[in-house]
Amino acid sequence: MVEERSPMDKNVVYIGKKPTMNYVLAVVTQFNNGEKNVILKARGQSISKAVDIEEIVKNRFIKDLKYDVRISTEKIKGEDRESNVSSIEIMLKK
Amino acid sequence: MVEERSPMDKNVVYIGKKPTMNYVLAVVTQFNNGEKNVILKARGQSISKAVDIEEIVKNRFIKDLKYDVRISTEKIKGEDRESNVSSIEIMLKK
Repeated sequence: MVEERSPMDKNVVYIGKKPTMNYVLAVVTQFNNGEKNVILKARGQSISKAVDIEEIVKNRFIKDLKYDVRISTEKIKGEDRESNVSSIEIMLKK
Repeated sequence: MVEERSPMDKNVVYIGKKPTMNYVLAVVTQFNNGEKNVILKARGQSISKAVDIEEIVKNRFIKDLKYDVRISTEKIKGEDRESNVSSIEIMLKK
């Protein structure tokens, strides 16, 4: 499973297995550093965590936060076959 | 944990612990019966499943499906304290 990241991705936060508050801190830090948009990206079971992070940032840190959600399907190559996994992008706007 | 349902909710599908394809079938059946909108509602870990259901309905059954996503936080009363849980509403439009 290859994570595709480019130098353009500095305002993208990829949600994985770390504790939720680590990602919340990453998002709040980016906004405090002047970013106007931060994008949360998550796949599979991490999608629920991405939604939690959006809610915590909005309810506890940045009151006027707006969001826009896109859902898509990615193909993940396993050892012998491809499988589909849902993914979510939550664009956060200050 | 009380599920709040009203008679207005006939086009709402609550996502729980059943297999994903059960919910896909429920959504497709509602569209086939003439509904123009079906709403998926899920909380906590079921949010990922709701996203899967949207993608399966769109990719396999209803090609021109549109969706709109709302995220919120619900308070769940436990035995001695309240806790917050994220919830998602995915409005599907044919």
